[in-house]
Amino acid sequence: MTTDYRDFYRGRAVMITGGLGFIGSNLARMLVGIGADVLLVDSLIPDYGGNLFNIDGIANRVRVNVADIRQQSTMNYLVRDRDVIFNLAGQVSHIDSLRDPYTDLEINCRSQLTVLEACRNHNPQVKVVFAGTRQVYGRPDSLPVTEQHLVRPTDINGINKAAGEYYHLVYNNVFGIRACSLRLTNVYGPRQLIKHNRQGFVAWFIRLAIEDKTIEIYGDGTQVRDFVYVDDAADAFLRAGASNACNGEVFNVGGDRPISHRDFTTLLVNIAESGRVRYVEWPPEKKAIDIGSFYADSSKFMQATGWRQTMTLEEGLRRTLTFYRHHFDKYVDGSALMEPA
Amino acid sequence: MTTDYRDFYRGRAVMITGGLGFIGSNLARMLVGIGADVLLVDSLIPDYGGNLFNIDGIANRVRVNVADIRQQSTMNYLVRDRDVIFNLAGQVSHIDSLRDPYTDLEINCRSQLTVLEACRNHNPQVKVVFAGTRQVYGRPDSLPVTEQHLVRPTDINGINKAAGEYYHLVYNNVFGIRACSLRLTNVYGPRQLIKHNRQGFVAWFIRLAIEDKTIEIYGDGTQVRDFVYVDDAADAFLRAGASNACNGEVFNVGGDRPISHRDFTTLLVNIAESGRVRYVEWPPEKKAIDIGSFYADSSKFMQATGWRQTMTLEEGLRRTLTFYRHHFDKYVDGSALMEPA
Repeated sequence: MTTDYRDFYRGRAVMITGGLGFIGSNLARMLVGIGADVLLVDSLIPDYGGNLFNIDGIANRVRVNVADIRQQSTMNYLVRDRDVIFNLAGQVSHIDSLRDPYTDLEINCRSQLTVLEACRNHNPQVKVVFAGTRQVYGRPDSLPVTEQHLVRPTDINGINKAAGEYYHLVYNNVFGIRACSLRLTNVYGPRQLIKHNRQGFVAWFIRLAIEDKTIEIYGDGTQVRDFVYVDDAADAFLRAGASNACNGEVFNVGGDRPISHRDFTTLLVNIAESGRVRYVEWPPEKKAIDIGSFYADSSKFMQATGWRQTMTLEEGLRRTLTFYRHHFDKYVDGSALMEPA
Repeated sequence: MTTDYRDFYRGRAVMITGGLGFIGSNLARMLVGIGADVLLVDSLIPDYGGNLFNIDGIANRVRVNVADIRQQSTMNYLVRDRDVIFNLAGQVSHIDSLRDPYTDLEINCRSQLTVLEACRNHNPQVKVVFAGTRQVYGRPDSLPVTEQHLVRPTDINGINKAAGEYYHLVYNNVFGIRACSLRLTNVYGPRQLIKHNRQGFVAWFIRLAIEDKTIEIYGDGTQVRDFVYVDDAADAFLRAGASNACNGEVFNVGGDRPISHRDFTTLLVNIAESGRVRYVEWPPEKKAIDIGSFYADSSKFMQATGWRQTMTLEEGLRRTLTFYRHHFDKYVDGSALMEPA
């Protein structure tokens, strides 16, 4: 099993939606290494995660198709003859979803129907792996959170991601489009968007550390999270895509070491040897959608596929910091829309 | 408590979306009786539940505004100055949602954002009661089903209804728009659509019994359901709308007497003194979204509001049969789009 699932992709036609984004591009790099035929679909919407530099070094070994997955006729064409679709395109900002719920609905909910209808009508043999999120659980009733925990999102983004995930399961069960969902926790690593702070705190904290700025922690920093290095997350997608045992199922994919915001930022600042931490009051709009402590139980996925986290947080942060220090200008530019931190 | 919640509505400005439909119109009749100022909003889309005859006898005591709740500017205007919104508009066919998932998405999911955004921007003081559904649970893990059961819809309609419900909770928690959801089981009674058989089996069976036709039961008829007479369902909406203890919560509203399809149809045919029952194989497209036996535990709602079911199934069926026998032509006409039963 340890290598079989990688061999599965040799010569296979694979499509990654959101393929120029954070997880998509790292997954693409792995698939290129294995010898897959890789098609990357990305809308390159400004302010979202797509970045052409993310495929630097593999650009001549993948095919890039700039397209919006909301476009039915385009998707109908692109899904043909693909063996596996890694469906990662999405809008990931919780805050944006509360300011403009319709755009979030279009991109995270309606667009999933577009992909799935394209598969149903033009490639029913395909396998689809959806990038779900731990956000669908909302504020946990108990820890660690298993897949038996209620789905109870605290913001619009979480609702639309939940609906997008449910669509995949219904298309699996009703229409036979093999599909599953990985509910990812906090994925970090190279190639994540750091232009603005509206897409999760980890990448933003890493940027602040590199810039030797002050990282602001809301509250007392005792909240716990788990973290997954992006290569481990990409490996999870490879395993899920190659396993029919995953069809119709949802799986948590989280880190094996829960850590408080306080300890995480201390570790980050120590490894970076720059930056500092300050504790501030919760802004009300963020407090309203805060979920307290969260960490996932990923044993269902580990049992189904043999997946294990292989990267320590220390080494993962080290690699991430090194990456962004080498390529800072490719991820932060004058057009960056920053909010006051 | 028994009458307070009714007094609450005297002189209050109330809006019912889907107000010319089955539950909406029965609720309107109660509200008119109490002395509320009632605005009914309905799209009157052919093939859906809206029917002007449903307000026969109260038409001059309510205001009807034909409008689609997907229309933002219209909703922005209509929600102003309303004290309570009963948000009942929706597409209720499971099968239609699998044939045309986009329309179901528009009507059951996106439109809820339209209503809630209108409230957020133009009437944040309003109270909203959403008509949810037991469908969000899918096939139960155990019976009776409480609100702690996983949300795991088996069809597109169930997913979109779940998303619509979640929006209400997030608007309650994040934006302070007081809202709650009633997850109704099988509501039956006068004024339900019986033109075609794509909106639930109860009304269709009642029509077949009246027409002295054969009622077809899929499988062996041992599946169990619970039933709520429409006046009891309307009473549940009144209670929820008047109670701030319900805000931010979801509640099952189901019947207190689970009964098998077999026993239900036998009872129906006996009371009707017409019609007959035949057992047939499951059609594959219906089997794929079947949920087996289902009945709800409504004790959370009963404790919160004092609600009790008051109508027996026998008496409820008797009244329903009498109603349709008197007004059959108002609910079945030449334009009816029937499928082969």
